[in-house]
Amino acid sequence: MPAQSAAGSVSTDAPGATDASGERDPKRTPGDRVVADVQLPMADLSVPPNSIGGYLIRRLWDYGVRDVFGIPGDFVLQFYGMLEGSDLRVIGATREDNAGYAADAYARVHGMGALCVTYCVGGLSTCNSVAGAFAEKSPVVVITGSPGVKERESDPLLHHRVRDFDTQRKVFETITVANTVLDDPLTAFREIDRCLAAAHRFKRPVYIELPRDCVRLEPPYPHEPRRDEQRSDPAALSHALAAAKAMIDAAKKPVIVAGVEMHRFGLREEVVKLAEANEIPMCSTLLGKSAVSETHPLHVGVYEGAMGRPSVTEYVEDSDCAILLGTFMSDINLGIFTARLDPGRCIYATSEKLRVGHGHFHDVVLSDFVRQLADTELAPKKRPLPKERGSVHAGFVLQPKNPLTSRQLFGRVNRLLDEEKFVVVADVGDCLFGASDLTIKGHTEFLSPAYYTSMGFAIPASVGVQAADPSFRPLVLVGDGAFQMTCLELATGLKLGFNPIVVVLNNHGYTTERFLAEGPFNDIPNWSYHRLPDLLGDGWGFECETEGDLDKALKAALANRDSFTLINCHLDKTDVSPALIRLGERMSESV
Amino acid sequence: MPAQSAAGSVSTDAPGATDASGERDPKRTPGDRVVADVQLPMADLSVPPNSIGGYLIRRLWDYGVRDVFGIPGDFVLQFYGMLEGSDLRVIGATREDNAGYAADAYARVHGMGALCVTYCVGGLSTCNSVAGAFAEKSPVVVITGSPGVKERESDPLLHHRVRDFDTQRKVFETITVANTVLDDPLTAFREIDRCLAAAHRFKRPVYIELPRDCVRLEPPYPHEPRRDEQRSDPAALSHALAAAKAMIDAAKKPVIVAGVEMHRFGLREEVVKLAEANEIPMCSTLLGKSAVSETHPLHVGVYEGAMGRPSVTEYVEDSDCAILLGTFMSDINLGIFTARLDPGRCIYATSEKLRVGHGHFHDVVLSDFVRQLADTELAPKKRPLPKERGSVHAGFVLQPKNPLTSRQLFGRVNRLLDEEKFVVVADVGDCLFGASDLTIKGHTEFLSPAYYTSMGFAIPASVGVQAADPSFRPLVLVGDGAFQMTCLELATGLKLGFNPIVVVLNNHGYTTERFLAEGPFNDIPNWSYHRLPDLLGDGWGFECETEGDLDKALKAALANRDSFTLINCHLDKTDVSPALIRLGERMSESV
Repeated sequence: MPAQSAAGSVSTDAPGATDASGERDPKRTPGDRVVADVQLPMADLSVPPNSIGGYLIRRLWDYGVRDVFGIPGDFVLQFYGMLEGSDLRVIGATREDNAGYAADAYARVHGMGALCVTYCVGGLSTCNSVAGAFAEKSPVVVITGSPGVKERESDPLLHHRVRDFDTQRKVFETITVANTVLDDPLTAFREIDRCLAAAHRFKRPVYIELPRDCVRLEPPYPHEPRRDEQRSDPAALSHALAAAKAMIDAAKKPVIVAGVEMHRFGLREEVVKLAEANEIPMCSTLLGKSAVSETHPLHVGVYEGAMGRPSVTEYVEDSDCAILLGTFMSDINLGIFTARLDPGRCIYATSEKLRVGHGHFHDVVLSDFVRQLADTELAPKKRPLPKERGSVHAGFVLQPKNPLTSRQLFGRVNRLLDEEKFVVVADVGDCLFGASDLTIKGHTEFLSPAYYTSMGFAIPASVGVQAADPSFRPLVLVGDGAFQMTCLELATGLKLGFNPIVVVLNNHGYTTERFLAEGPFNDIPNWSYHRLPDLLGDGWGFECETEGDLDKALKAALANRDSFTLINCHLDKTDVSPALIRLGERMSESV
Repeated sequence: MPAQSAAGSVSTDAPGATDASGERDPKRTPGDRVVADVQLPMADLSVPPNSIGGYLIRRLWDYGVRDVFGIPGDFVLQFYGMLEGSDLRVIGATREDNAGYAADAYARVHGMGALCVTYCVGGLSTCNSVAGAFAEKSPVVVITGSPGVKERESDPLLHHRVRDFDTQRKVFETITVANTVLDDPLTAFREIDRCLAAAHRFKRPVYIELPRDCVRLEPPYPHEPRRDEQRSDPAALSHALAAAKAMIDAAKKPVIVAGVEMHRFGLREEVVKLAEANEIPMCSTLLGKSAVSETHPLHVGVYEGAMGRPSVTEYVEDSDCAILLGTFMSDINLGIFTARLDPGRCIYATSEKLRVGHGHFHDVVLSDFVRQLADTELAPKKRPLPKERGSVHAGFVLQPKNPLTSRQLFGRVNRLLDEEKFVVVADVGDCLFGASDLTIKGHTEFLSPAYYTSMGFAIPASVGVQAADPSFRPLVLVGDGAFQMTCLELATGLKLGFNPIVVVLNNHGYTTERFLAEGPFNDIPNWSYHRLPDLLGDGWGFECETEGDLDKALKAALANRDSFTLINCHLDKTDVSPALIRLGERMSESV
């Protein structure tokens, strides 16, 4: 017996007259219920460029940041006022961890992202999303307010404090590449330069804590921004290039494996140049999917060990010179370590390591190596492309009356990618594995937490994607478990007019876990996911039982330009994608 | 144009026949879409009592834990199987941080709580709720799976890994009172004893990491559980008691201020005994509200500095012997440090410190001190109670046609507490300040994060409350901002038949922040909160514009015994509770 009144939208913007008589004032609208004339203290929106807060804003701008995600709180209100008065856009999230995911995704498509939260209750809520950005090399600047330097003097038990005033910083020390507390105007400006340069250089998160009484302090001496330039050791670089050239020239079966760092460090064009100039076939890793276009004539597929297509796996593992550029040697990337790559036959270059065969080279900057390798005259043997190269979904035919299956769902979604340009944002679990078979046409058109695999990433990440560029329409693939974690962040997109299409793979639980150890803990309750628009007051929702239902819903979704479209796809709890089936088959072969 | 099909509930429990023909099998129900005969590997539910995992379960049981909150993940599936096979109940949450809040609330009402999550993506998601338990002294045992000892040998990039395998432990080192990695069967059993004893003794969270290949290991030597007994130094204790007796006997205006530790350490009866035997008036702090019954004849009210009722504040601050038992000297507890207490006229006893006037005593256990003080023959002067003692809401009269205001909302809710026994669970912001004026009748009937003030605590905490005792019906008071953070956790209560009443103070943003610095960042979108039942598929929802609407909704809520009742109360964005108005008035006096 849910007794519900129809939801009316209520505006409280216009202040109403005070009414103490107990009778209702006929002039009042239903939303007016001001009980006293209240003079609210307005935030100070001025941005003195020479203040610590103003300088931080200016330097974020220099690095290309245009939007800051977060939630205010009293220890950071001073800086929020400044942000609001600046040219940066403040995007309020429903939860701090979601703001972290959004800033991470923003950084992945835009180069750097920023997050602004209050002390401890805010900051500590972002640990997991910031840790994910660390693990997958996404430069997120975590800005947090904190108690003022003056109010710390007598060591009081201020609210939000955990143990010491330093507790939050200590936590972030373990999950960021640089951290600072801007509590001294003598060093604060240099510290801002140092931290932002570290984020830019290492593509990892940094932590900047701003005590609330320091936001408007100015430097005692004039400060000039510093730029930090990273340089290769010229001799080490030339020896590494010579070793690489020798190995490639001797190769009969070369292949390039492009990883996510090619995107992070802006080296995608150089990879394509290297491939085209020498006619070397390319593939990408799962985390690096869309680092190079999958419709390029030299593109072979996604390499992911046993989980990948056997033709791609064999092609790469059979190579006598696998040129691995910016790839993470992670378990998911390598199909849960089923990949078989002999280091003696690999060139392995990342921002952290450079190895040619068994020889290691230090002090070589990744971008120098990749750029100069692309410019080097090479003479590898021309290697034929594998025969079986087309999409797994090439033979897709819609069977409108059939109950929806995972395979057919991905087949239909793959066709959608032909109809309009999307950025595919995949959550973890089987939606990630299934998404690995989608054909991604452009750069940066595939985003997922494929290494850290944090459930709930995709929906808040889609907010970051479209904030970075409103023309990047997200296609979100998310399981029901992940959806339950972060679905409410769709509300933030509604405020901004974003129009993601969200496909919920509703299989009533943690399906990939069922294949490891089945038990009642893998079951989750079934919600009417498509009814979320009723709660949020906007958005479209559809429920799909059959392939025909999905087809209609996707067509409608294409037509909805103004809000999210949510598609609740019922799937059997043991129905999995072709990619997971491949993994299972090949694993059982080796038992 | 939201096009929605009616939500049908779909059962996928019965496996359906394989259907590859493309035609729909008429025998299949809509939910059957198994694509292949799948044999899922069933979790091992056996619980060898002599294994590391089995021993952990046994010792949790010894400390009174009966329920474990969390979400499974592959690194903790082995232990989940064991939990499922044990007598402990596993309660799956929608998010790990919510599981943390639930375990915290469970610990507050039940003595100890437990949380079981997977490595990093799970554990790091609980940092904020565990930090809150640390700050407010709630003994939560954080159990996390992790990569097996064997699989760490070659230092591989396993999924969920952030920096080192040790990263998660390092983070938790800063927000727990003891931590361990159970990677060696020689020490693991002793370590379990040590960590659980620390949680019990210090009433703080502890961290126990269980590598997945160690769950079933057995000790090389027989292990007997160890109990850690804390003892006072007898001489220090007797000197402290003598000093306290001298101060109390000399007092003309004694008062007891009971804090939250009286509840945590099971000393509520001793406090009442001390008060009754000597006719000393009592009050409580905000965090300790309900540590003693507020309808006790000697109860004066809640002491919270300028935010409290002036009569209570004056009564306490005018005392020549304030006996502060287990109180935190935190800013919110003390009305943002407007409390004026002279240490020379206080006895201040907590689990960490004992001070009588300006004399400090070390090595005195809180419970020894309080118990023996209650047994001591004392002779304080009898102090008359303050005249103005009744409820702020004593004069409450419902004005059914009036638009709802914060004052009247709390007045009506206060009356509800006469009608049925509730555990009031207050979130932060003005719902906490307003709730401070509610009259709480019994022990443990008020719960809030009054010191750490983490938004979003209340709804998941209410799950922990009712899990601890199904007869504890929660009355949840929550702002719209907090509701947006964690409302979906109501789904977990639905699974278990819980029936909280949830009152949403919907004032379109972060209202307490508006009184510090107003700006657009304090606005949040208005949702149809009362439509949440449509999404979750159960629960009752009401929308209230007037006092009459609220009255009807609360009456209906009393009748709903089987699911949550959600009441969306529209309030003006500048309408605040009487408590916040008091704070504002007294603060302006002192300017």
